[in-house]
Amino acid sequence: MKQNIYDDPNFFNNYSQMPRSVDGLKAAGEWDELRSILPDLQDKRVLDLGCGFGWHCRYAREQLARSVVGIDLSENMLARAKQITEDPAIEYRQLAIEDIDFPEGEFDVVLSSLALHYVEQLDDVIQKVHHCLVPGGTFVLSVEHPVFTALAAQDWHYDSEGQRMHWPVDNYQDEGLRQANFLENDVLKYHRTVATYMNTLIETGFTITKISEPKPSAKMLDEIPEMRDETRRPIFLIIAAVKN
Amino acid sequence: MKQNIYDDPNFFNNYSQMPRSVDGLKAAGEWDELRSILPDLQDKRVLDLGCGFGWHCRYAREQLARSVVGIDLSENMLARAKQITEDPAIEYRQLAIEDIDFPEGEFDVVLSSLALHYVEQLDDVIQKVHHCLVPGGTFVLSVEHPVFTALAAQDWHYDSEGQRMHWPVDNYQDEGLRQANFLENDVLKYHRTVATYMNTLIETGFTITKISEPKPSAKMLDEIPEMRDETRRPIFLIIAAVKN
Repeated sequence: MKQNIYDDPNFFNNYSQMPRSVDGLKAAGEWDELRSILPDLQDKRVLDLGCGFGWHCRYAREQLARSVVGIDLSENMLARAKQITEDPAIEYRQLAIEDIDFPEGEFDVVLSSLALHYVEQLDDVIQKVHHCLVPGGTFVLSVEHPVFTALAAQDWHYDSEGQRMHWPVDNYQDEGLRQANFLENDVLKYHRTVATYMNTLIETGFTITKISEPKPSAKMLDEIPEMRDETRRPIFLIIAAVKN
Repeated sequence: MKQNIYDDPNFFNNYSQMPRSVDGLKAAGEWDELRSILPDLQDKRVLDLGCGFGWHCRYAREQLARSVVGIDLSENMLARAKQITEDPAIEYRQLAIEDIDFPEGEFDVVLSSLALHYVEQLDDVIQKVHHCLVPGGTFVLSVEHPVFTALAAQDWHYDSEGQRMHWPVDNYQDEGLRQANFLENDVLKYHRTVATYMNTLIETGFTITKISEPKPSAKMLDEIPEMRDETRRPIFLIIAAVKN
């Protein structure tokens, strides 16, 4: 199933108002960490899977990437991306992540930010990413953390006074579909264990070079006190891997 | 701090009555998975960090390992290990994991089963393991899973009727000491994130070849219905890595 929730007008409207949609990468809590994990992009041919508004595509070009292809299934997302991009070296294509079919060795770097937990057949996608990377090329992906996706409710456990007691984990080993709620809409996500993310990459022919479960920086904790809760449980998992 | 809780008579007595202490590897829920991840041990020189009663040392010799060194800080554990081992190719040494100091390339395989969450300076130990392995040698370790060690209580969250509601996670990003309770004794453990385990290995010069968050097999679920709870949260993390 290829989900296109971003073309649901209500969802798109809500998504468009998120801080990261309005202010871009600097409003994304995990961006500092993701950026630090990205390889040098200068003169690289970059593919962004699930590019959304194109923030990472434009960032890659700021870092002097030679060319960038951003793909996304959502017409809404791509229309906005094109609207705010003036750069002939960035090409946006409307395409499901599952349907990519690029030639062997077409890219030096493949990125995917918070999109692969929407994909049912992770192994197929990782196989295709491996195919379209040059040997030695880098794949950097971020997903919602398995600790975060295990329970479909994706919410804290509260005490009788409405305080956040802890983050509940259950059904961790039961991989597969989760009917979650995001921005007041039903969204289908796929829960996978940490082991599955890692082993799928390794078995496909990648060497894992870095893992991150990003946490707020001291500066962020100072400026946004509610970020303290983001030290209580991992919300994202970032993996960098190099094609063997 | 090098903890030697296993030489506390009360703890040792309780530990000695655990199924895995009485019946060995076949009574350890994660053993099938750990065994499947071990490399071929034939003719290998093997080191076991935190060998306890020596079950893995004897297994290695059954697999025709050339020689095995098992180290453990506990006199009690080693006395029992020696008592139930008749094999001149297995050498037991009383030594803290933190104090290993083997020559470069002394071993082909290093194992450590459920011991490294007791070690404060993980990076030092991994450095020493790297040093004493031959290039291409394998390090296989299991630890209590970070989802399991995050909260010192290491217990389920129960509803008002005493039923297990879910596994609580909190303080995940706060790495360090946890005053836990194991077999009615206070035990010091060190909580680390999944990312820290992985990155410490990678940065020391290992390539990660396999991750496992073992879950009960269908057979085990049939035979021991209460094992169903072990599908609800990961309890162990197993990592196999090869020295670059």
